[in-house]
Amino acid sequence: MIIILKQGSTPEQVEGVESTLKEMGYGVHPIYGVERTVIGAVGAPGADKEAAADQLRALEAVADIVFVLKPYKFVAKEFKSEKSVVRAGDVEIGGNRVVVMAGPCTVESREQLLKTARAVKAAGATVLRGGAYKPSTSPYSFQGMGLDGLKLLAEAREETGLQVITEVMHVRNIELVAEYADILQIGTRNMQNYEILEEVGKIRKPVMLKRGMTAKIEEWLQAAEYIVMGGNTQVMLCERGVRTFEPYTRNTLDLSAVLAVRELSHLPVIVDPSQGTGRSSMVPAMSKAAVAVGADGLIIEVHPNPEKALKDGAQSITIPAFNQLMVDLPAFAAAAGRSL
Amino acid sequence: MIIILKQGSTPEQVEGVESTLKEMGYGVHPIYGVERTVIGAVGAPGADKEAAADQLRALEAVADIVFVLKPYKFVAKEFKSEKSVVRAGDVEIGGNRVVVMAGPCTVESREQLLKTARAVKAAGATVLRGGAYKPSTSPYSFQGMGLDGLKLLAEAREETGLQVITEVMHVRNIELVAEYADILQIGTRNMQNYEILEEVGKIRKPVMLKRGMTAKIEEWLQAAEYIVMGGNTQVMLCERGVRTFEPYTRNTLDLSAVLAVRELSHLPVIVDPSQGTGRSSMVPAMSKAAVAVGADGLIIEVHPNPEKALKDGAQSITIPAFNQLMVDLPAFAAAAGRSL
Amino acid sequence: MIIILKQGSTPEQVEGVESTLKEMGYGVHPIYGVERTVIGAVGAPGADKEAAADQLRALEAVADIVFVLKPYKFVAKEFKSEKSVVRAGDVEIGGNRVVVMAGPCTVESREQLLKTARAVKAAGATVLRGGAYKPSTSPYSFQGMGLDGLKLLAEAREETGLQVITEVMHVRNIELVAEYADILQIGTRNMQNYEILEEVGKIRKPVMLKRGMTAKIEEWLQAAEYIVMGGNTQVMLCERGVRTFEPYTRNTLDLSAVLAVRELSHLPVIVDPSQGTGRSSMVPAMSKAAVAVGADGLIIEVHPNPEKALKDGAQSITIPAFNQLMVDLPAFAAAAGRSL
Amino acid sequence: MIIILKQGSTPEQVEGVESTLKEMGYGVHPIYGVERTVIGAVGAPGADKEAAADQLRALEAVADIVFVLKPYKFVAKEFKSEKSVVRAGDVEIGGNRVVVMAGPCTVESREQLLKTARAVKAAGATVLRGGAYKPSTSPYSFQGMGLDGLKLLAEAREETGLQVITEVMHVRNIELVAEYADILQIGTRNMQNYEILEEVGKIRKPVMLKRGMTAKIEEWLQAAEYIVMGGNTQVMLCERGVRTFEPYTRNTLDLSAVLAVRELSHLPVIVDPSQGTGRSSMVPAMSKAAVAVGADGLIIEVHPNPEKALKDGAQSITIPAFNQLMVDLPAFAAAAGRSL
Repeated sequence: MIIILKQGSTPEQVEGVESTLKEMGYGVHPIYGVERTVIGAVGAPGADKEAAADQLRALEAVADIVFVLKPYKFVAKEFKSEKSVVRAGDVEIGGNRVVVMAGPCTVESREQLLKTARAVKAAGATVLRGGAYKPSTSPYSFQGMGLDGLKLLAEAREETGLQVITEVMHVRNIELVAEYADILQIGTRNMQNYEILEEVGKIRKPVMLKRGMTAKIEEWLQAAEYIVMGGNTQVMLCERGVRTFEPYTRNTLDLSAVLAVRELSHLPVIVDPSQGTGRSSMVPAMSKAAVAVGADGLIIEVHPNPEKALKDGAQSITIPAFNQLMVDLPAFAAAAGRSL
Repeated sequence: MIIILKQGSTPEQVEGVESTLKEMGYGVHPIYGVERTVIGAVGAPGADKEAAADQLRALEAVADIVFVLKPYKFVAKEFKSEKSVVRAGDVEIGGNRVVVMAGPCTVESREQLLKTARAVKAAGATVLRGGAYKPSTSPYSFQGMGLDGLKLLAEAREETGLQVITEVMHVRNIELVAEYADILQIGTRNMQNYEILEEVGKIRKPVMLKRGMTAKIEEWLQAAEYIVMGGNTQVMLCERGVRTFEPYTRNTLDLSAVLAVRELSHLPVIVDPSQGTGRSSMVPAMSKAAVAVGADGLIIEVHPNPEKALKDGAQSITIPAFNQLMVDLPAFAAAAGRSL
Repeated sequence: MIIILKQGSTPEQVEGVESTLKEMGYGVHPIYGVERTVIGAVGAPGADKEAAADQLRALEAVADIVFVLKPYKFVAKEFKSEKSVVRAGDVEIGGNRVVVMAGPCTVESREQLLKTARAVKAAGATVLRGGAYKPSTSPYSFQGMGLDGLKLLAEAREETGLQVITEVMHVRNIELVAEYADILQIGTRNMQNYEILEEVGKIRKPVMLKRGMTAKIEEWLQAAEYIVMGGNTQVMLCERGVRTFEPYTRNTLDLSAVLAVRELSHLPVIVDPSQGTGRSSMVPAMSKAAVAVGADGLIIEVHPNPEKALKDGAQSITIPAFNQLMVDLPAFAAAAGRSL
Repeated sequence: MIIILKQGSTPEQVEGVESTLKEMGYGVHPIYGVERTVIGAVGAPGADKEAAADQLRALEAVADIVFVLKPYKFVAKEFKSEKSVVRAGDVEIGGNRVVVMAGPCTVESREQLLKTARAVKAAGATVLRGGAYKPSTSPYSFQGMGLDGLKLLAEAREETGLQVITEVMHVRNIELVAEYADILQIGTRNMQNYEILEEVGKIRKPVMLKRGMTAKIEEWLQAAEYIVMGGNTQVMLCERGVRTFEPYTRNTLDLSAVLAVRELSHLPVIVDPSQGTGRSSMVPAMSKAAVAVGADGLIIEVHPNPEKALKDGAQSITIPAFNQLMVDLPAFAAAAGRSL
């Protein structure tokens, strides 16, 4: 931790900061510049650094505090240098193969789900997506089929052999969802729902943690740390676009986030071009770009009849469009040294 | 709902959109412009408009869809034109008096809490704030005293007569917190935690809903609608700053949001200048500005010893600073036609 | 300057950074932490710090660089601790009196301008605003009356005694505009138009520098530094809202920026609630809040007939609304220890 | 143009809006919904739509206005459906070949420039980049070699046959820069510097217009329209990252902007992964992603010795890294149906 003091701080003030640091257990290394004094604080194992910083910032003489160490541990690359591989059945996420998760935004009916599941399986997807519980900004919108949706997902797995990923939205439902799903998804609105993070930390199923709408990468990794601290190391991240001022796309898909996570962490990263753009016309090209940048997988909304979809038809691609994408993707994966 | 078609749409495509709308139960009012066709869709009571729009957007010819009606009802000004007053004990929020809620960010000890409570009461505050359960970006930071904190808050109420507001973070704790607190606070990270919104909709205690870090005002009102739909009409909103690119302040406090809510809704609005700026030096002036703009109340972090605070010392003002603010505020309230 | 090295940097790498710093003329103060090494770089008067940092960041071992000193000098509070007062005729900006600048967005006609000028003068404004050259996102929109507009502004000054502020948009016109105007305004799109900044630095007229749409406060002060470095110390700043994700308001007016500038600089700060909100309904309340927070002045769009305005009618208030505001404002100014 | 009226508008108010529209020359098509009235305004050729909308918004009864037509014409896909190809010497931008522009951020010396030029030429680049005039947030930073830099660029072209792109920052220098450069670059800070846009519209050299730091795509296209309206149709766009809340990267590179421009316009789009990320470690992967998404070209900062670069060393890749990238890129181009 580095403490930057204000210009014109008195010797008494500097001493005050130093003695506060010492009380906290830190070793104190001041650097007296021409215009400012800076203090390096070293050591203090076990200290609550955020609390310490909060206290220091309240001192009159303190201009700013810079953290030198990362605020997460188990998900950091320094903790584990080789990339983690998350396993759901026979599907490996984070290995050489790029995983394709596909399916409808929302489970709407047996026919819709099975038709989509068969199609995406045939085209080469290995994981089936589909929402049974749907977060919805409006309380008046369709909120999913619930348990019936979970059962249909399980049936589709039975028939196709696809692994199933679905969102867990309620603390009360975590066990139920975990019974039916192979991978639990935590949605963007719940990235900092600490109760859910703690609860999924206790179970032993893979979790895909979507980035919060305006979460910094550091905050996203801290959210993942909550899960891993609970004992569940089967965590993957999912970039799904961030909120900006641009209205043409629903979100701004931040592909550099894949690289940032790679530099900071060992966790696999999936990209969601459907939520990330909100436009089906952009999904194929952004999928290719995600593979080119090194994503470990894609999660894509596919619907047999987007103009009849109960949710997010505008960002769902048709089955033929998905088939074409699966024909095109291998060349990009190969160029990136991966396979599909 | 207005459907804007793409330039160059064929008559067949236009007809396709029209027949889709009719199937959905809408009356269809096309306007054929020189370059584009636009269709007004009227009626269809009970329709899930978001779902309808999602389906329409998936049609090739549809360029854009514009909603004409607001996506919330009970919290809208059109539903109730006079401003709502929320009551916690003898404290009215939304009436002529500007309510001041004050206290520590986090309950740390009996002494800290009682000392602060007595001081803010003496200075004129009517509600005591204090976190017993604290959301924390880092899993390694202090997360609050929990039940012991709730008990101390109740003790402080007993002694001072202040009403108590505290955050509810876990679905499992809602009833417990409601037992001890007079107003339940939903924090910024939980603004779209629908499980909590639904659960607090079932109880009969006032709720203060903080704006999500990057929530649009419309989304914030939709979140409030979730609570009111559950039957709990005692809802107030709290502007606490939004996330921008500016690093000098912790957030950017959006005082125009107070006016926006006033134009769109009947719910009272509180302003949090502590979270909103992250800097104790800015809290007094931003409090005055909030009163000037017409906020129904303030929620201010006060600590007897900010440099020893376990959380957010940098944004907590001292008791003397709070006393001074309470001396200065009445003139601003009076100028705004209110009293303190 | 503080250089934070990556975890696991080798002693050779650390030495490499140290010797690079020494070559640059810096004194080197390393702090060897348990997990990381941090180097304080002191001295090197006259060094181009940004260039130095750019070079250091390119070194493999460097994780991050933190600047300890501010990247501006003449506009900093450390350079001049008492607040600056800018003078335009007999109007002082930055003194005890809150200055009100008012007038139409754009000069449209002799009648429109004179009518507005007389009215705002009568109500108590001391500066007349009005655009003769108007920046316009669309090349098909009205771009102002040009020289004819300047002449009308001069005529209005003649008649009313108001000082005139108008925007300078073109390098080629600076001298011309300076001939007619008392204060030159640099618009948000030109905050980093360094050619204009340099040119207005050479003249001896007050300049009002609007904040760029998404300029950090530090960048804004650096832009002001360009002008002051050129020799023109008569500079005031103008907060006019920043771009965020919120669509209800045209911009998000950042009143805490007034306080930030006050903490960092001696320059006066004006607030523009018209551009800042884009909604005439919000202008009076945000004006009051701006005065409450301590702004040195307001710049307000007033139009005798907003629904006939050629530009920005939606954010222009009527003359009666302005009159009412000027009746209401003194109480807020008095509460803030100022007068109008 | 669609005018959405407020709920509860009186028949007189509706009539008022209608007669205002008719006065402006519009045909009026009202739709009377259950709760609201909406008016479609058709026709009025030659009307200043923004001005009309500004006036309408000032009417009490008007809630919102939606534009149906795009606010640009010559750069729109509707104006020219096939993609434009811009030619600089024998280099075609917008054709099947992906163009690679490479070179130092800033021209620093004859040796540095020529060494880099030879290397990027050998690796397959066809355009040499290099700043002679450098915009700099800080007035104390290096601002480029000016004319000497231009001369060195010309010398490098002479020797290598590379086309030269360099930034034009000053209105006074446009002709001078145009004499030496083959493509004029307009930087992010000048995207809405209308004086420069108008001036480069008068010359007959290709122009590359960088996206403003927080420009919406629509605004970017309007800025391009300024140039094309002036008569210069040789315009290409350059996505270089937008400003968000994320601090890990310098900007957030918005690759979906390439697709958005493709859907809306016929202009070619270049991607700048150096400015877009600010991190040399990310440049190769983001370059591949840009090619995968369909960019017409890349502009990449290459430096023989990034740790000695006078500007932006942290985002400059070395010559060996560039060589490797040029080996890797063709496979991505081929997968995207292009060549290098």
